[in-house]
Amino acid sequence: MRRVYITGIGQTSVQEHWDRSARELAASTILEAMEQAGIQKADAIYVGNALSGELTGQENVAALVADFAGLTGTEAIRVEAAGASGGAAVRLGYLAVASGVQDTAIVTGVEKMSDLTGPSVEEALATSTDEEYEAIHGLSLVALNALVMRRYMHQFDVERRDFAHFSVNAHRNAANNPYAMFRRPITVEQFEKSRLVADPIGLLDSAGAGDGAATIILCSEEEAGGRANSSVEIISSSLATDAVALHDRSNPLFLRAVYDSAQKAYEQAGVGPEQIDIFELHDASAILAALSLEASGFASEGQGVRLAMQGEIALEGSIPICTMGGLKGRGYPVGAAGVYQVVELVQQLRGEAGANQVDARLGMAQSIGGTGATAVTHILKAPE
Amino acid sequence: MRRVYITGIGQTSVQEHWDRSARELAASTILEAMEQAGIQKADAIYVGNALSGELTGQENVAALVADFAGLTGTEAIRVEAAGASGGAAVRLGYLAVASGVQDTAIVTGVEKMSDLTGPSVEEALATSTDEEYEAIHGLSLVALNALVMRRYMHQFDVERRDFAHFSVNAHRNAANNPYAMFRRPITVEQFEKSRLVADPIGLLDSAGAGDGAATIILCSEEEAGGRANSSVEIISSSLATDAVALHDRSNPLFLRAVYDSAQKAYEQAGVGPEQIDIFELHDASAILAALSLEASGFASEGQGVRLAMQGEIALEGSIPICTMGGLKGRGYPVGAAGVYQVVELVQQLRGEAGANQVDARLGMAQSIGGTGATAVTHILKAPE
Repeated sequence: MRRVYITGIGQTSVQEHWDRSARELAASTILEAMEQAGIQKADAIYVGNALSGELTGQENVAALVADFAGLTGTEAIRVEAAGASGGAAVRLGYLAVASGVQDTAIVTGVEKMSDLTGPSVEEALATSTDEEYEAIHGLSLVALNALVMRRYMHQFDVERRDFAHFSVNAHRNAANNPYAMFRRPITVEQFEKSRLVADPIGLLDSAGAGDGAATIILCSEEEAGGRANSSVEIISSSLATDAVALHDRSNPLFLRAVYDSAQKAYEQAGVGPEQIDIFELHDASAILAALSLEASGFASEGQGVRLAMQGEIALEGSIPICTMGGLKGRGYPVGAAGVYQVVELVQQLRGEAGANQVDARLGMAQSIGGTGATAVTHILKAPE
Repeated sequence: MRRVYITGIGQTSVQEHWDRSARELAASTILEAMEQAGIQKADAIYVGNALSGELTGQENVAALVADFAGLTGTEAIRVEAAGASGGAAVRLGYLAVASGVQDTAIVTGVEKMSDLTGPSVEEALATSTDEEYEAIHGLSLVALNALVMRRYMHQFDVERRDFAHFSVNAHRNAANNPYAMFRRPITVEQFEKSRLVADPIGLLDSAGAGDGAATIILCSEEEAGGRANSSVEIISSSLATDAVALHDRSNPLFLRAVYDSAQKAYEQAGVGPEQIDIFELHDASAILAALSLEASGFASEGQGVRLAMQGEIALEGSIPICTMGGLKGRGYPVGAAGVYQVVELVQQLRGEAGANQVDARLGMAQSIGGTGATAVTHILKAPE
């Protein structure tokens, strides 16, 4: 396996881009990242996208994005793994370059969630659950997470307001991120009073839908040339799955796919959670953030929420999470989120994170599809 | 790059499977192929699926299929490239094994096109066109192919009935394939009289939607062990793209993505079209078959239809195509079609094609997404 470097990044702001379609969002970030990487072409484009077919009636997105970015003819493949689509695209790009098959790969995540031609965002998101056993009964994705949260509150004796610290942290960090959708800090009281989306998950707990695209350029050491020394390196990559339906898991409070993918990522990198300086996790709702911290080894069972309550997830804490706002603060363009996470880690590891800068050498990004069916974990290392 | 062998295959019949869902179809072929390959687990599962989100409200298909096949936890990634989804999945599986990243990969294509919860099949298929410039005006996929066919008839002075030979061949071959959907031979006269779907494409020209799944097991030489000698080998793999919208191509009668991917595949295999004994091409309609023959080097410009008229595409011809019925005769479960093509090539190259057996050493499979936006080509070699 060869070493893989990230030599360019690009991102759009996450918002309701009423004047820009998915292809425009994606292409603008590809051009931005290519310019930064100093490349005019690539061997392949891997596109993470979750819901374009349902929401805007457009499949075949990879060829479309390649064409619109002026890369007509380039190998282009679209990957879908629900909320983990962006992470899965990063993994395919990583594998292509690490294995020696391709020297330069573009990885783009894109999602267009306003100006829809299809069903509602809620209906579309429900496609990431088990349709025949969950969605068909009217269970939405957030409703399933709400069931898990309720169980967590019961089992570990925590209150709804205890979860607030995840959103407070996310909004605080988003306030300093010019690309973020929700740049207004919130308080625990506001979290508690926010209207319910699916009891006990409220509006200020659930990550909001937004349009956005993000791109990274992956290069082999040889291809990166002189840039390798100043580039962030992907030192491990892992994807694991679990049962899609919540009721098929022996313990709904244990994210097995997250555990498996984190363990494999640690093993490949030769590190443990104690060496990770920043963790961009999948905070589609606070309960997922808490369970991710636990399954990834940052907190023991039932202690994820307490870690947040103690301030350890803040920029100055022991394991800063969602340092640029996370899904909750930056906004959640579903299939793009996994690429945004990596872009934000690169900003941090290069020292370009502005007011949110953390002194970090190793960062971890983790995407989740559905309620935990798919998990993708990447560990990145700062330039020496 | 390591050598990659196909050590197991599985397929369901293509039909309206009212009693079986996508996961059941997929899992049954995975178990069948794993048994044949003599494996109990794999490093990864690549799932080709085009329309599950739209048609049945189920995304995150790869994790679902892995779980239902008893492979919970296994890395599983779903790939979408419209009609080329199955071919793209084969390519990812090939790359994973060839590169040394994974030793055993399962590649499954699956599509469920009856018993729908979503829009019509026509609407869903239109998502593989350019939504903002084609589908939005009411252009369906078959309508776009009809425009191309009309232009071809005008430019090369051929009649609608001349295209019949593709369907006649497909139905004749399907008659002997127990997995095929349309096992009734047809005549040129029936083709000509069939009612129009989108003038000049008629019902007996357009490949019919069907439910189905197909699986291949890919292994490295080491992993295949003693099976390598008796296994079909994938000797080249290539994916290329073109503009998604028909009007963005300088010549709508030239399938550039097909040309590019075929050329790269020939180059990698060190052969030319004259060495290919069987060609499983993407006959979603006869015009696509004709243009594929031309862009892949089997006929010069405007001669693809004449090749069919001369009988050269028949089992006993110079370049047999759609030997088990093709998309037209076997039926067209969109995202699964590319894997079916490879399964059928394996049947031929192993000498297991029954009444349709062709004496063949090299076979080529080619999938197309949309009207030609994506093309994937694989060349397979018979066991020595």
